[in-house]
Amino acid sequence: MIIQNTKAIMFDVYGTLFDVHSVIDECKKHFPEKGKSISEVWRKKQLEYSFLRGLMGNYRPFWSITKDALRFACKSENVELTGTIEEALLGSYLKLKPYGEAEGVLEKLKGHQLAVFSNGSEDMLHPLIEHYSLQTHFDYLISVNGIRQFKPQPSSYLYALEHLGVERHEVLFLSSNTWDIAGAKTFGFKVVWVNRSGDVMDEFGIQPDHIIGDLTGLLD
Amino acid sequence: MIIQNTKAIMFDVYGTLFDVHSVIDECKKHFPEKGKSISEVWRKKQLEYSFLRGLMGNYRPFWSITKDALRFACKSENVELTGTIEEALLGSYLKLKPYGEAEGVLEKLKGHQLAVFSNGSEDMLHPLIEHYSLQTHFDYLISVNGIRQFKPQPSSYLYALEHLGVERHEVLFLSSNTWDIAGAKTFGFKVVWVNRSGDVMDEFGIQPDHIIGDLTGLLD
Repeated sequence: MIIQNTKAIMFDVYGTLFDVHSVIDECKKHFPEKGKSISEVWRKKQLEYSFLRGLMGNYRPFWSITKDALRFACKSENVELTGTIEEALLGSYLKLKPYGEAEGVLEKLKGHQLAVFSNGSEDMLHPLIEHYSLQTHFDYLISVNGIRQFKPQPSSYLYALEHLGVERHEVLFLSSNTWDIAGAKTFGFKVVWVNRSGDVMDEFGIQPDHIIGDLTGLLD
Repeated sequence: MIIQNTKAIMFDVYGTLFDVHSVIDECKKHFPEKGKSISEVWRKKQLEYSFLRGLMGNYRPFWSITKDALRFACKSENVELTGTIEEALLGSYLKLKPYGEAEGVLEKLKGHQLAVFSNGSEDMLHPLIEHYSLQTHFDYLISVNGIRQFKPQPSSYLYALEHLGVERHEVLFLSSNTWDIAGAKTFGFKVVWVNRSGDVMDEFGIQPDHIIGDLTGLLD
């Protein structure tokens, strides 16, 4: 059983518990022709900006970076982002759809120490989780904003660990993001890659401890 | 004149002096249907892996990362990378085509202190520049490998600066890569964005001091 010998189970949020591309509908509403490409560039740049700000030592909360990435996506796709549309699109980020199996799996894990750990700042993470009343499942909602260092910086995983009161090898960390898997494994967590689309693992010379197709694999 | 009040002119290499996508021909030779997509994924992952290794504190020389990125590109495009093909494709990275105007512009800058500063390790940077006998134009060929910190980490720009014996605001740094422009400007260089494709600047709240369409703009 994957969760054997585990004292805490910690979940990444964006892409792991919630589908970041569920913003496509709102994107398409305002930009029918370009909804998909805007959603893709938006996510791509959101990640890239967090990595680059981490490297430059020029931290900004993820909510601010999410805005910047949306603005870039609209400029590069050559559409006008009015104040009203920006508000609507950012608003959709606070109501991303949870993956269908997520709540049922959390329910079955009752009794374990559970946490989320995200690059998202509290002002976006809490409203999202509370919108679906999922907060009762978790002992901790941990944001890197408390230490102003993004995943996959080792200091960010250390910050999360300090909440849990266990050793790093006793933490089972789940993410769908390969860079997060690499960072968490390098730090010393046991890691489970949630590979929903049958992707190829990145070439870091690092392999996840387990690979599952969706969160139900955690119960096997 | 852009180069006024400048004591050293420093060039990024990949994408700035040399066209990274000139490997397409070699890619197409081995994978006719997928040459373009392999070249694109290869470059995208090469950059991403350098950023992520920088964040994880898990440095490898860029030549090694370039290999990893090629392997990922072939796996994700579902083609078989034999040892012979790998050698041929990596070999093409040591003979990337310089942009047409590059040598003429370097010739006209004679008398100025000139340098290149690259994420590329010496084992890939020197063969490339020497293949076209361009080394005589430069006072320094500086690789981040000397400090094992990738651009855009501030420590890498500091390392480059230490070679030049001038103040940071006296350095004019040219790059076609927006993340390099943001990093160099944050560090304190004067920066020129070589925007060959009419791209949109990234949303870091940072603007280049100058934007030119190709290197000849430096002589204006």
